[in-house]
Amino acid sequence: MEQETSGECPQYDLRPIGRVESPLRDPATAPKQGDEGAPEATLVFVPEVKDGLHDLRPGTDVLVLTWLHRADRDVLAVHPRDDRTRPLTGVFSTRSPDRPNPIGLHRVRILTVDGLRIRVADLEALDGTPVLDLKPVLDPGTDR
Amino acid sequence: MEQETSGECPQYDLRPIGRVESPLRDPATAPKQGDEGAPEATLVFVPEVKDGLHDLRPGTDVLVLTWLHRADRDVLAVHPRDDRTRPLTGVFSTRSPDRPNPIGLHRVRILTVDGLRIRVADLEALDGTPVLDLKPVLDPGTDR
Repeated sequence: MEQETSGECPQYDLRPIGRVESPLRDPATAPKQGDEGAPEATLVFVPEVKDGLHDLRPGTDVLVLTWLHRADRDVLAVHPRDDRTRPLTGVFSTRSPDRPNPIGLHRVRILTVDGLRIRVADLEALDGTPVLDLKPVLDPGTDR
Repeated sequence: MEQETSGECPQYDLRPIGRVESPLRDPATAPKQGDEGAPEATLVFVPEVKDGLHDLRPGTDVLVLTWLHRADRDVLAVHPRDDRTRPLTGVFSTRSPDRPNPIGLHRVRILTVDGLRIRVADLEALDGTPVLDLKPVLDPGTDR
């Protein structure tokens, strides 16, 4: 596929808007999903995006998009949940972090908002994970 | 925030895994969400990711992540749904395509799978939109 370029770099460059601060530091022991005992964490945003954070309220659920920076981007098939008794499965049918574009998608509840620091519950992302985006949950029943 | 670099380029480079083929060509008239009358579309994948597509089945719902390539990445506040009677709102509390990292998140149903071409229902993305990722829906009640 063509890659539009600006100069030498691909056009599709992500600009992290912040980082995760979390007690989770070891990928081997981290929960695979937020509802599997993930801890509270803090999203620490860069000052440049401050105006985008207005209107985020404690008690609401949001989708956090992250860049799973430790992922192996060359993986196309995995044993789901690292369980070798399960057959090799195409990564697009799994939530494996190893995939061509390792974008993490996490539904979390906002606990507190303090300027550029937003405290959330149940985030399974590792400490230092870049944050790419926050989106509102559209419909609790059928959300995307 | 620091940007880790490899050579001159940012480390966070997306590699599109395919493109959207859709009758939607005009951003002004496109539906804003898939359940607002969006048409069927085809996801056309690059051959390099073929092994990741195994196990995708007609009749199942998936999350499609796209790169909203026409977005304005400098926008931090918008009038929701372009309705100027609604107050300016931080983009992270909206689904506006204009945002620092314009990643689109679409829940669609797979209609047919034909090699590298996957036909889906209700996709509001414009023709030519780069596809970044596909993920399974985890839980219809509380999905992320």
